[in-house]
Amino acid sequence: MILARGRFITFEGTEGVGKSTQLDNAAKTLERLGIDYIVTREPGGTPMAESIRELLLAPREESVHETTELLLMFAARAQHLHNRILPALSAGKWVLCDRFTDATFAYQGGGRGVSRERIALLEALVQGEMRPDHVILLDAPVETGMARARKRGELDRFEREAQAFFQRIRETYLERATEMPGRYHVVNAALPLEQVSESVSALLTALAKLPVSD
Amino acid sequence: MILARGRFITFEGTEGVGKSTQLDNAAKTLERLGIDYIVTREPGGTPMAESIRELLLAPREESVHETTELLLMFAARAQHLHNRILPALSAGKWVLCDRFTDATFAYQGGGRGVSRERIALLEALVQGEMRPDHVILLDAPVETGMARARKRGELDRFEREAQAFFQRIRETYLERATEMPGRYHVVNAALPLEQVSESVSALLTALAKLPVSD
Ligand SMILES: Nc1ncnc2c1ncn2[C@@H]1O[C@H](COP(=O)(O)OP(=O)(O)O)[C@@H](O)[C@H]1O
Ligand SMILES: Nc1ncnc2c1ncn2[C@@H]1O[C@H](COP(=O)(O)OP(=O)(O)O)[C@@H](O)[C@H]1O
Ligand SMILES: [Mg+2]
Ligand SMILES: [Mg+2]
Repeated sequence: MILARGRFITFEGTEGVGKSTQLDNAAKTLERLGIDYIVTREPGGTPMAESIRELLLAPREESVHETTELLLMFAARAQHLHNRILPALSAGKWVLCDRFTDATFAYQGGGRGVSRERIALLEALVQGEMRPDHVILLDAPVETGMARARKRGELDRFEREAQAFFQRIRETYLERATEMPGRYHVVNAALPLEQVSESVSALLTALAKLPVSD
Repeated sequence: MILARGRFITFEGTEGVGKSTQLDNAAKTLERLGIDYIVTREPGGTPMAESIRELLLAPREESVHETTELLLMFAARAQHLHNRILPALSAGKWVLCDRFTDATFAYQGGGRGVSRERIALLEALVQGEMRPDHVILLDAPVETGMARARKRGELDRFEREAQAFFQRIRETYLERATEMPGRYHVVNAALPLEQVSESVSALLTALAKLPVSD
């Protein structure tokens, strides 16, 4: 028997929109469908990639140059892709991943102003033609996600700045969804949890019926 | 008074040819000439770049993908360049560096077979048009350097493999020297130490008289 390649599905969106929640829900849905899968996250996903994540996230006195950050992100990604994602897909498993390269375009690109060309160049270097089969974009107003993540409270100056930053990120995600309608699935994540979960489950059930294109 | 930009001088060559020895000698020469300088090395040169170096060199069970290694090298380089090398050059200091991007072309390219295009692409991404002003290539037969570094002993199978690997590295360095005769200075490092040191000192003294081209 020849195994069909698994599907590579990523969950994207700004802070607090429900990515982790919907990854759990997606995993349960695949279980019900009898589909073998792994759940993973970026940056990280292998011991070495997690070490790179720590290096990226560790607070330090030295300022981290934008290019350094970008290259570390893609170094972790190369390791994750080759040592975890591709082997799982080849074994017929679906891969559910909390963020991937679309997040780099949204956060480093839209958020921090790194040029799209620089990111695309590294994407090609690390991934070649490889892209997620489906991107599930959980979209909600920035304030909705923030309120969920932070519970409540008047926004201070830093949080206001952060809000403009996350606003650019949301817009970049939505632009990409418009440019790549076949790959992106936009889910209204502002709705109550049960409705979002139902949309995501219905989407995955539909995707499971599509023929694999590889 | 407007400070002239310092010169960026790198020392290249296979293991044991005398890079560290000649960096010391070069530093003493610059002191005699009254030139302000810093001595640094790759990968490394800043606390964060040194952390990346540790990550690269740490023994681990997980195999490190070739692309991961390449991106980590250039991540360390971006940090080193922006936080240490460029500020020193702007302050009018000369920078003496133990290896730089030419080593990536020689080791990852010539040695490991990573395509020259992939390396050149990252070089452009991280450095733009910035290149060392002068590359001092200490050239000696691979066995000469090996014997110096390892003292003596019959070569075992692993060391023989390593020798072919270092042979490709030496050839790549020599090819690059032929392609970029203005930037590369080949020093015969097989000669006795005093003669090599004299060549390097004479070279630096001559370079100090050249006008800066920036
Ligand atoms: N549709 C929803 N409506 C209300 N609350 C939600 C919804 N989806 C998730 N949450 C809650 O919001 C918080 C953030 O969700 P989480 O999945 O951790 O977001 P993310 O991983 O995108 O940052 C959690 O407490 C979660 O239970
Ligand atoms: N021209 C030379 N002749 C003989 N020995 C040398 C010469 N240059 C360096 N050495 C010795 O060879 C060893 C390796 O030199 P080193 O500068 O550490 O090489 P590298 O940094 O290139 O690996 C040291 O013990 C050094 O003293
Ligand atoms: Mg989460
Ligand atoms: Mg040395």
